[in-house]
Amino acid sequence: MAFTTKMRVRFRHCDPAGIVFFPRYFEMINDVVEDWFAQTLDLPFEKLVKENGAPTLQIETKFTAPSLHGDMLVFCLTPTKLGRTSLQYQMTAHCGDELRLSVSAVLVHVARLGRPLPWPDDVRKKITQQMLPDS
Amino acid sequence: MAFTTKMRVRFRHCDPAGIVFFPRYFEMINDVVEDWFAQTLDLPFEKLVKENGAPTLQIETKFTAPSLHGDMLVFCLTPTKLGRTSLQYQMTAHCGDELRLSVSAVLVHVARLGRPLPWPDDVRKKITQQMLPDS
Amino acid sequence: MAFTTKMRVRFRHCDPAGIVFFPRYFEMINDVVEDWFAQTLDLPFEKLVKENGAPTLQIETKFTAPSLHGDMLVFCLTPTKLGRTSLQYQMTAHCGDELRLSVSAVLVHVARLGRPLPWPDDVRKKITQQMLPDS
Amino acid sequence: MAFTTKMRVRFRHCDPAGIVFFPRYFEMINDVVEDWFAQTLDLPFEKLVKENGAPTLQIETKFTAPSLHGDMLVFCLTPTKLGRTSLQYQMTAHCGDELRLSVSAVLVHVARLGRPLPWPDDVRKKITQQMLPDS
Repeated sequence: MAFTTKMRVRFRHCDPAGIVFFPRYFEMINDVVEDWFAQTLDLPFEKLVKENGAPTLQIETKFTAPSLHGDMLVFCLTPTKLGRTSLQYQMTAHCGDELRLSVSAVLVHVARLGRPLPWPDDVRKKITQQMLPDS
Repeated sequence: MAFTTKMRVRFRHCDPAGIVFFPRYFEMINDVVEDWFAQTLDLPFEKLVKENGAPTLQIETKFTAPSLHGDMLVFCLTPTKLGRTSLQYQMTAHCGDELRLSVSAVLVHVARLGRPLPWPDDVRKKITQQMLPDS
Repeated sequence: MAFTTKMRVRFRHCDPAGIVFFPRYFEMINDVVEDWFAQTLDLPFEKLVKENGAPTLQIETKFTAPSLHGDMLVFCLTPTKLGRTSLQYQMTAHCGDELRLSVSAVLVHVARLGRPLPWPDDVRKKITQQMLPDS
Repeated sequence: MAFTTKMRVRFRHCDPAGIVFFPRYFEMINDVVEDWFAQTLDLPFEKLVKENGAPTLQIETKFTAPSLHGDMLVFCLTPTKLGRTSLQYQMTAHCGDELRLSVSAVLVHVARLGRPLPWPDDVRKKITQQMLPDS
């Protein structure tokens, strides 16, 4: 059960070659994670980060084709592994049928001081329901 | 023979938790690559991108400890694998003795239309000289 | 006849004080102008910038109250003065009843080499129709 | 007595037209203000923002000529008016002899809750010493 959201490539995303500058993709990726938390976990970032946080620990990304200004990108996020305090997800972005990027990342739930913090039970339950049977 | 450069963590890099927002790290990483091209390969990006480009194909990053506003980060870049048109590099950033991030990335030399383009011989030679004997 | 669009304040917009970092407002302002061109002038930026451009010549902004992560901002843009090659607009952003910022800016239509270029007649007509009777 | 600092235009600053995207100028402007606080007021932002802040209230900018990737910009900042809690400054950026932008801005010293806070006496003194006799 992948979470899906759309984002149009804007002028501010693009570099002198007229394609998305790769650090801007990571801003988009963060927006997708933010939307996923808000829309499916009932834990909007603005609430989460008041006391705690969910920093990214590692992220692997393959950019399989360039994206142009004006392209409509469809992002899909699937949670793939849930630890006591960590969460692994995979994400893709397509434009039409063409894969533009694929991501595998791990983030961790932390208290403000950086100490790992178990996911709350309701968040845990909501994530688990979105995971594929075999992941 | 690693290429080394320093960068201070600025206000604009930091998020509401007061630490570097991870997409900003990728802006820093791109700056380091840009400096490396300009200072060691005699191929400044502003010259490279006039006709061609060097987009990032894949990048894996581990964030091992958070960076705070004001921290002085020391980045080290080492080229690790040189293909006909591709280049793999590894990068680390430390603050004092503490490792903050490690990166492994692949970029590719392309013509404006996106077609892979062999590295020029002089660039090729300069990169090879910087590679470790066994990489 | 103001053009209106909404934008939510995201994590990536916010600084260590938890409020929108002012350079991020200018990214939002540019997005609003981009939407206005695409939705009302039939001149999407991705088409405009292929041959020409519309750089900002001057911009004055007052930030009347801070915006917090999660706030829904309503932006209104009104064209106020149309020259042969230039365009002045005013913009506001509100959160609920509270004014967050007001902008007055001038941009200019240029050819790729930077030479001012008269607005096409159809764009000119569409802009004029949106202007207030007395502006 | 203007504060002066240099910044090179980087790939990440530039838009599809190959010139600095104007919101990136505001990131540079903020860096200049940050350097000015750290180097001349003995009040680095990382210390200032721990308890308080110095948000920008208004900023007027004229972009008089475009900046290209690779250009070396020389920024000059002069404080022009010091209120009990506010500060007005003017800034320019030149590339060689050519003026690229001029800025007039007001920022305010605030406590974390947003309440205006008088400038500390030592900061006040250091700013006053940098002001032109007639400003």
